[in-house]
Amino acid sequence: MIIIMDERGKKYLIDQKSEFQSDLGIISQEDIAKAEVGQSLITHLDKEFKVIKPNVNDFIDLMDRRCSILIQKDIGTVVAKTGLGSGSRVVDAGTGAGAIALNFGNIVGREGNVYSYEIREDFAEVAKKNIVSFGLDNIIEIKNKDIKTGIDEEKIDLVFLDLTKPYEIFENVYECLNLGGYLAVYAPYIDQIETSYRVAKKLGFNDLSIIETLEREIEVRTQGTRPKTRMVGHSGYLMFGRKL
Amino acid sequence: MIIIMDERGKKYLIDQKSEFQSDLGIISQEDIAKAEVGQSLITHLDKEFKVIKPNVNDFIDLMDRRCSILIQKDIGTVVAKTGLGSGSRVVDAGTGAGAIALNFGNIVGREGNVYSYEIREDFAEVAKKNIVSFGLDNIIEIKNKDIKTGIDEEKIDLVFLDLTKPYEIFENVYECLNLGGYLAVYAPYIDQIETSYRVAKKLGFNDLSIIETLEREIEVRTQGTRPKTRMVGHSGYLMFGRKL
Amino acid sequence: MIIIMDERGKKYLIDQKSEFQSDLGIISQEDIAKAEVGQSLITHLDKEFKVIKPNVNDFIDLMDRRCSILIQKDIGTVVAKTGLGSGSRVVDAGTGAGAIALNFGNIVGREGNVYSYEIREDFAEVAKKNIVSFGLDNIIEIKNKDIKTGIDEEKIDLVFLDLTKPYEIFENVYECLNLGGYLAVYAPYIDQIETSYRVAKKLGFNDLSIIETLEREIEVRTQGTRPKTRMVGHSGYLMFGRKL
Amino acid sequence: MIIIMDERGKKYLIDQKSEFQSDLGIISQEDIAKAEVGQSLITHLDKEFKVIKPNVNDFIDLMDRRCSILIQKDIGTVVAKTGLGSGSRVVDAGTGAGAIALNFGNIVGREGNVYSYEIREDFAEVAKKNIVSFGLDNIIEIKNKDIKTGIDEEKIDLVFLDLTKPYEIFENVYECLNLGGYLAVYAPYIDQIETSYRVAKKLGFNDLSIIETLEREIEVRTQGTRPKTRMVGHSGYLMFGRKL
Repeated sequence: MIIIMDERGKKYLIDQKSEFQSDLGIISQEDIAKAEVGQSLITHLDKEFKVIKPNVNDFIDLMDRRCSILIQKDIGTVVAKTGLGSGSRVVDAGTGAGAIALNFGNIVGREGNVYSYEIREDFAEVAKKNIVSFGLDNIIEIKNKDIKTGIDEEKIDLVFLDLTKPYEIFENVYECLNLGGYLAVYAPYIDQIETSYRVAKKLGFNDLSIIETLEREIEVRTQGTRPKTRMVGHSGYLMFGRKL
Repeated sequence: MIIIMDERGKKYLIDQKSEFQSDLGIISQEDIAKAEVGQSLITHLDKEFKVIKPNVNDFIDLMDRRCSILIQKDIGTVVAKTGLGSGSRVVDAGTGAGAIALNFGNIVGREGNVYSYEIREDFAEVAKKNIVSFGLDNIIEIKNKDIKTGIDEEKIDLVFLDLTKPYEIFENVYECLNLGGYLAVYAPYIDQIETSYRVAKKLGFNDLSIIETLEREIEVRTQGTRPKTRMVGHSGYLMFGRKL
Repeated sequence: MIIIMDERGKKYLIDQKSEFQSDLGIISQEDIAKAEVGQSLITHLDKEFKVIKPNVNDFIDLMDRRCSILIQKDIGTVVAKTGLGSGSRVVDAGTGAGAIALNFGNIVGREGNVYSYEIREDFAEVAKKNIVSFGLDNIIEIKNKDIKTGIDEEKIDLVFLDLTKPYEIFENVYECLNLGGYLAVYAPYIDQIETSYRVAKKLGFNDLSIIETLEREIEVRTQGTRPKTRMVGHSGYLMFGRKL
Repeated sequence: MIIIMDERGKKYLIDQKSEFQSDLGIISQEDIAKAEVGQSLITHLDKEFKVIKPNVNDFIDLMDRRCSILIQKDIGTVVAKTGLGSGSRVVDAGTGAGAIALNFGNIVGREGNVYSYEIREDFAEVAKKNIVSFGLDNIIEIKNKDIKTGIDEEKIDLVFLDLTKPYEIFENVYECLNLGGYLAVYAPYIDQIETSYRVAKKLGFNDLSIIETLEREIEVRTQGTRPKTRMVGHSGYLMFGRKL
C-alpha cells in the first residue's frame, strides 16, 4: 500500500497491484509498482502525483471506518502515560474498525504484539481488512471474540479498554499483565470512569489516576493570533492503573 | 539496567553488574544478574523487592536530569499527531538530559533512529550516560553540535525542536524531511510559536497547526467525584507542519 | 415593556401600548396594560400566555442586535472582578447594539450611570431604541461620539473598552477614573491585549491582569453524565487595571 | 467604613469613628471623618495614605472570613446567567461569612433585597458584623435559620444555594420564585450537581443547564507572553434552572 497526493493536496490510498484511475488521469501499474517516497508519478493526462511516506494517520483518515474512532489526543495520552514503545505487548477491546489497534501496532512494531478483541463479526472483518491493507497483519491479531470470556494472552504491557462496562473484566486484566504493566480505560461518561476507578482500587491496581485532556487550536491571522472560536469540549475520560 | 520496587512502593534503577545496597538490606550481584520481571528479590534483612518491567517513564523519573523536561502530555501529542512509530527516523534539538530522545527512541525501536543535537557539552554528556543506561545507545545518537550549522541526516520522518528561535533552521528542516514528514515545534511563548508559524508558512510547509493541551485530573473520593483543585495551566504550545 | 411566553416556551417582547397578535391569537391592549408578573393572558383563540418578570438576558435575546455581542461569561467576569454594583458609574465603548450597556445599566440601577460611546450613527440609533425599550434610558446615555476625542465624564468606577486599539485612549481613561476605579479591556487577539498590558503598565495602572475564561457545559443523560462534545474555545481576553 | 492604601500598596479597612494607627504613623479621627475618595491623608510621621473608593472585593479581601469563600468567577457567572441587577430580590444559603450575600447586596442595591440563611450561629454572627461594616445592612438580612424548615420570602428573582444537599429544598425554592426567576446551585462534586439536575427536572424547572468555568491567567513578560504555569482546575459546578 502506498499513499499518493495530487496537485490539489488530495490523498489516495492505493494498492500496488493495479493501475490507478482518477479524474486527473491514469497511472500505470508498472509505475506504481516501483514508486518510491518523494518521487513523482505522471498520469496519461500529464498530471503529477507525489508519493508520500505512508503514515498511520493518513491511512486511518482514508480507510473504511464504519464506526466512530477515538480522537488522536487520547491515543497520544495513553502512549505517553504508559511508556508504550517498540516491542510492547498490547491487548485492546473493542476493536471497532481497528484504528486504535493500528495506532498501537504502528508503535510496538515487529518486535511487539497487539491482540485486539471485537465481539461483532462485521467490525472484526473490517478491522482485519484494514490491518492487512496497512501491512500490520504480522503484528496485530484481530480476535472476533467476547473479551469477557477471558483474555488468552500473558505478559502484557498494556490493556486498553473502550467498552461500556470495562470494569467487568478488570480481574482478568490484572492476571494477564506484566509486573509494571498498565490498564488504560477510555469512557465518555463520568459514571463509567468512577466505577472503573473504584473497582480497580479494590482489585489492587496501583498509581490510579483519571484524566481528561482539552486540546485547543490557535489561529495565526493577518489581524493577529487567537485560539479558535470552537473546540472539542469532551472526547472522554481516561483512567490508568498499574500492576505493581 | 533493571528497575526494582520495595514494599513501600519506592523504585530503584539498578545496574546488573554490582550488588544493591539500601536501608532495607543488600541484594547480591548474582541474584540481580539473573532477575526476571515479576520475580521477588530478598535482601539479607529478609525484605522483599519486586522486579518491574523497565518502562521509559520510570527511567526518566529516576535518571539524572539537570534540566527541566517537557511534560508527558506534550510528547503524547507529538507522537499522536505525527503518527510516529516503530522504524521512524527522528531528529531532535536541543537534547537536554535526553528525556525527549529517550521517549522517541523507545517508540522508534531498533529499526528506527533518533539523532539528537545538543550545543552544550555538559548536557550532551549527561544525555549520553542516560541513553547508555537505558540501553538505547544503538538507536539514539547524541550529537554535541549546534544544529544551526546544519542537519547531517536525510529522509527524516520527524524533526522535533525545543529551541529559543526554532524558525532559524526551518529551511534545513525542510531539506532533511521525507515527503510526508513532520516538523514539530515546542515553545512556551506565543510570540515564538507565532513567528514559527509565519516562517513555516512562507517556506511551504503544509497542514500547519498550532495547538495547546490542557490536562485535568479527576479525583474519586468517598464524598464524590470532582476535578482536582489545581492543574497545570500551560506547559507550552506545539506547532506542526508537514512537507507535502 | 413586558415579556410573555406561550405554551411552547417561545418568548415575546411586547410593548404595553398596543394589542398583541400571533399565530396563537390576539391579546387585547387592555389585558396587556394591566398584566402582572405570574399572571396568565388568554388570546381570542383561548391560548394561554404567561407574563414573565423582565430579565435583561431575555431582553437582549429578543432585541434588535445587528452586530455580534460579547458572550455572557465575559460580562460576568468583568462584574465580578471590578466589584461593579448598584450606584456605580460606568463608561463603555463601543456601544454596538447596546447589549453591554444594558447589562451594566441593569446592575448600576437608578443611582448609577452608564455613558456609552459609539462612533457609528446607525449603531447608536439601534442602541438608543433598545435602551428606551428596556426602560433604562434614565440610567444609560448613548453618546454618538468618537471616544478618542475625549471622555467627558469624571469620577468613573469602571471604563470598559471593546475597541480595535483600546490602548490609544488609556491616558484619558486614567484621568476619568476614581481612585480605586477599574479599566477593563475586551479583545479577541492576543496581540491587542499584550499591547494593552504594556501601555497600561507604562501609564501607572496597578493590579494588572489578563484572563481568559473557558465555559463548559455538562450534560445529564439517561446513560450518564458528561461534558458536552462541543464548546466555545475562545470569546476573547480580558485585561484589568486599576487606578491606585 | 473607608479603605485607605499606604505607599507600599497595602490596603486597610478603617472605621471612621476612631483614629488610625499603623507602623507608618497615626492619622487623626478628624482627618478620617472628612476623608474623600482620591484624597491623601498624612500621618504624624509624614507618611501618605490615599483614600480609595470602597469596592466590595477589597472589603471581602480584608474582612473577617473564617470559612472558605466561593471564588469570584463563579459569582460573576451567576450574575451574568441570571440577569441579576439593581432591584432584584435574592435568597441565598448558606451564608458563611457573608461574602456571597455582600456580592449580591452590592448589585441589587437599595431597591433590592438579599435574604441570607445560615444554620450556624457563629457564622451568622460574623456575617452580620461584616454586612454592617460594609454598610449593606439595609439591603441584606442575615437569618440564623435552617432553610430546610422553609423559605419565608415570596416573589424572589434568584435563589442561590451552596449546601451539601441543595436538592432537598427545591420544592420550596420553586414556590418562592417569581415567574421567570432562577435557581442557581453551586456544588463541588459532580454527584451533587447530577442529583440536583434530576430533581429540578422532575419538579418542572425549565432551561436547566450545568456549567463549569475555567479561568486562566496570561503573563506578559520581557521574553514574551504566555498563560501562567499553574491555574485553578476546579472550583465547582453551577446548575441553573428557571421557573417558567
